[in-house]
Amino acid sequence: MRIDIKECARILSEKDDILILTHSHPDGDTLGCGFALCRALLKMGKFCTVINEAEIPKKYSFLYDDIAPVRFKPAYVVAVDVATENLLGDLEGKYHIDMCIDHHGTNTEYADVLLLEDVPAACQTMYYVIKELGAEFDDRMASALYTGLSTDTGCFRYASTTANTYRVAAELIELGAENGKINRLMFETKTKTYALLERLALESMAFYDNDRIAVITVTQEMYNQTGSSELETDALAPLTRMVEGVEIGAVIKEKPDGTCKASIRTFESVNAAELARAFGGGGHPQASACRFDCGIEEARRRFVEKGSEFLSKVE
Amino acid sequence: MRIDIKECARILSEKDDILILTHSHPDGDTLGCGFALCRALLKMGKFCTVINEAEIPKKYSFLYDDIAPVRFKPAYVVAVDVATENLLGDLEGKYHIDMCIDHHGTNTEYADVLLLEDVPAACQTMYYVIKELGAEFDDRMASALYTGLSTDTGCFRYASTTANTYRVAAELIELGAENGKINRLMFETKTKTYALLERLALESMAFYDNDRIAVITVTQEMYNQTGSSELETDALAPLTRMVEGVEIGAVIKEKPDGTCKASIRTFESVNAAELARAFGGGGHPQASACRFDCGIEEARRRFVEKGSEFLSKVE
Repeated sequence: MRIDIKECARILSEKDDILILTHSHPDGDTLGCGFALCRALLKMGKFCTVINEAEIPKKYSFLYDDIAPVRFKPAYVVAVDVATENLLGDLEGKYHIDMCIDHHGTNTEYADVLLLEDVPAACQTMYYVIKELGAEFDDRMASALYTGLSTDTGCFRYASTTANTYRVAAELIELGAENGKINRLMFETKTKTYALLERLALESMAFYDNDRIAVITVTQEMYNQTGSSELETDALAPLTRMVEGVEIGAVIKEKPDGTCKASIRTFESVNAAELARAFGGGGHPQASACRFDCGIEEARRRFVEKGSEFLSKVE
Repeated sequence: MRIDIKECARILSEKDDILILTHSHPDGDTLGCGFALCRALLKMGKFCTVINEAEIPKKYSFLYDDIAPVRFKPAYVVAVDVATENLLGDLEGKYHIDMCIDHHGTNTEYADVLLLEDVPAACQTMYYVIKELGAEFDDRMASALYTGLSTDTGCFRYASTTANTYRVAAELIELGAENGKINRLMFETKTKTYALLERLALESMAFYDNDRIAVITVTQEMYNQTGSSELETDALAPLTRMVEGVEIGAVIKEKPDGTCKASIRTFESVNAAELARAFGGGGHPQASACRFDCGIEEARRRFVEKGSEFLSKVE
């Protein structure tokens, strides 16, 4: 059942022992949402915690490093920024999901109640949910929400960013969000291992269909060679789309079991979510993801073939 | 004499035949300011034009490609986003400068009247000047101002970006600024020649003083090899500062006459404007520029020496 912000806040204010689930390979938006909501609920005197299927990358530690762990038997489960249940990874099927707060048009409505808004970051919706809850904002909550806004819009760069996104960012800065520090951490800091991986990734970039498709491939060998890992690959996908003339970009990453995962980026001409759906994935109109049950070369072949099919419809 | 926004608008509304000067090696802020003000004054029925010492880079053509050239004898001259007279390049000394609208703390007060605000982009001040003038905004004016806001803040990324910067951006988007298109053009489009230059530049990057200083050197030979030019070097300076641990970054560019120009970037620990001033340059606390009357190797030696001196004071 679809609910609005008012109803969402009303339900949350009545619940306790709330478990918040974030999506696998977590990003700034799912974590920002999760920890901002968790802080709001803790302030209201409730038990609440945020979990992920795996360890959260170190660069997000500022979101939670002051929160003491609480143990409780979950009485209410909320998934944030999670479009489909299988994006929960190893947490899939472990909990009945009572509520979902999301911004993906591809959301499969798996939760009992769904708050879904067409906004560039789930944190934009969460800002209004917390306001409606009446919880007092502090700088940590503001920073958490700002992190999601900023990371899901490529630092307010993407075309999906609306006037209201900027306005919420302004309010969060006034509430104490450390915008300069967060953006430096999210966008301006390359670890040495990532810098090495990026160089190899750029060398692997290949062009197809009159340079309208660009594909970066990242192998397990490349992680071994650089000391990097899949956790550091978020920034690679946007690089494909930056070269003049490219309409579809993808990073295809080899998993330890030899299968692959692709991050897709497009411009207005091609719907990235539809392209990902052709391989059982999903996402946004210009940023999506999918998996391949084959090796990296075969995955690239299939992806380029399907990409060309989409491009042929553009003309 | 210092003036405020009200006084600035009052003076402009009384003048006609207004010539607007932009700084050499023009960027989005000086051009955005210039063309937004020009459009406002044209709408008010005045004669007005914007000039630069050289040809304006093609990527900014959307700022002015619909403005018909007007000829007139300038009766009032306004410099926008120009901290010192010598930043006018070949236009220096050609006009008496009646007014300056700027945001550089290093402004030398060379104009008869100066509107100087401590804001991250001169376009932020210009937005309020145009509002005060009472000129009706159109989407072209909004796009011009948004371009300056976005480019001078690294797309709202730098720590200097305030809540008010975001708020002005929100208002400009509502007034028709094409934020997605502008950011794509300014930040997400690499020409093939730039992509080649960037690769050579990254190869040239060298580290000093326990990796706290990073210097990229760009030679005339590199322009020849890639088909690129100094006009495409704006995006190189931020790359130096991105590697973990770097506190001072610089791009030293060789000029055709063998002398050099440096773009400097720092983090909070070092004042980039002061560092540039040691070589007769200037700018902002975290982004500045200066010239060297020597070859590129000697310039790098002098820069690293001075940079180390600044870093030794940090500890």
